[in-house]
Amino acid sequence: MIVVKIGGAVGTDLSNLVEDLQGREDVILVHGGSDEMNRLSEQLGKPPRFVTSPSGHTSRVTDEDTLDILRMTYSGSVNKRLVQMLRSRNMNALGLTGIDGGLLKGRRKEAIRYIEDGRIKILRGDHTGTVEKVNVELLETLLGSGYLPVITIPIEAEDGGALNADADRVAASIAAAVKADELILLTNKPGLLKDVEDPSSLVTSVKKNTIDEAMNIAQGRMKKKILAAQEALHGGVVRVIISNANTDRPLTRALEGEGTHIC
Amino acid sequence: MIVVKIGGAVGTDLSNLVEDLQGREDVILVHGGSDEMNRLSEQLGKPPRFVTSPSGHTSRVTDEDTLDILRMTYSGSVNKRLVQMLRSRNMNALGLTGIDGGLLKGRRKEAIRYIEDGRIKILRGDHTGTVEKVNVELLETLLGSGYLPVITIPIEAEDGGALNADADRVAASIAAAVKADELILLTNKPGLLKDVEDPSSLVTSVKKNTIDEAMNIAQGRMKKKILAAQEALHGGVVRVIISNANTDRPLTRALEGEGTHIC
Repeated sequence: MIVVKIGGAVGTDLSNLVEDLQGREDVILVHGGSDEMNRLSEQLGKPPRFVTSPSGHTSRVTDEDTLDILRMTYSGSVNKRLVQMLRSRNMNALGLTGIDGGLLKGRRKEAIRYIEDGRIKILRGDHTGTVEKVNVELLETLLGSGYLPVITIPIEAEDGGALNADADRVAASIAAAVKADELILLTNKPGLLKDVEDPSSLVTSVKKNTIDEAMNIAQGRMKKKILAAQEALHGGVVRVIISNANTDRPLTRALEGEGTHIC
Repeated sequence: MIVVKIGGAVGTDLSNLVEDLQGREDVILVHGGSDEMNRLSEQLGKPPRFVTSPSGHTSRVTDEDTLDILRMTYSGSVNKRLVQMLRSRNMNALGLTGIDGGLLKGRRKEAIRYIEDGRIKILRGDHTGTVEKVNVELLETLLGSGYLPVITIPIEAEDGGALNADADRVAASIAAAVKADELILLTNKPGLLKDVEDPSSLVTSVKKNTIDEAMNIAQGRMKKKILAAQEALHGGVVRVIISNANTDRPLTRALEGEGTHIC
């Protein structure tokens, strides 16, 4: 089994992936939607707000209104368009959020530490969390009946509420839970770059025990991908590949050696 | 098996229904979202547009942008909030659109006849349709695994595109396909009224062979409900009840005799 995570921009990269998925029956798809969510947030007069943790991880501040917009974008707009795109190419896709059937149960973050004006501040009451439990039975039921699960956030809190969660880390939780051999994180970069401006500075291989060095190299969203990779490997996934989505056959290329291989 | 259709306004009426569903394992839920969709359409500067057919049925003009807003509202916002509401009361809800797993396959309307300035006009290229085939196996798989399906539009066109469809008629198709005994259409009226301004003018019973008279009495959205009832009965459903959602125990009351019973 392979878990493939893609961004949410329904464009060329997605149709390349969809082509590349033809005939595969061993895939679970997880997708994001951050850029589209930012656009809708602006349109609705509720500009996105982000905080950066002391360790350099960026996360979206998620209040009730943000959750509404998140549900609309991830689950309504991106998920259904992706499912449509797959289905129109004869793949039996079925979309789910972490809420549906209790697919992804998580823990709410009590407090988020972030840096502002050089000082550490605390954000409370944010609707953000991490996955603690995956309903593997539901996935097995669907896979066993021939469906391709297309999964996105929000995830479900203990109290039944919805939580925002990082989609790369969600994909890692799912990969670990279903004992996937591989987690493929497709992105708009060729992989982990030593210098983000220089595609030739690609780190082709990272060993599990040197992942902290990779984390130090990573910048911006790439940090979350390295964290996701770490969590996936810790959970028993054999190999994590971070690779370019903006190419033909992005999945095949990743499996054949392109991108950053972490194991 | 009972199919219950509710509107999309996530308010008091929904929580009354959710309470009333406690302990039931024989239910499939279908929901609308028209009012919320109108609000979002206005917010996004794309005011809703409706046309009225020569026979008096009103439908939403659905272009590509409208489909986007439809996906966001029905599938993203309303469906997920309803699933959350059910799950937080210990019901194992799982949300699906007609696209997911090919649950509801439909036929695109080639042309919609409508009245404007007293003349009949034709609207072409609209993304609207009616359900032709229900993936009953998927519903059985989910019900058999203990999930409560919460279903909404869009439905899937032959060409893989998404289609708008009337949610009452969608519920009727599902009820017929799963051979439901009852289809309950919960609404903001006590049932079919001879005079829409007078709640005491309730028509308590309509016989299958006099449904045309009921159609002549019905106004506005109620016309679609009568049409849905007709289609459900034609499809083998034993009884259709149109009843008030804005009350405690709306489902129990309907089953015990309130509202308009059509059989």
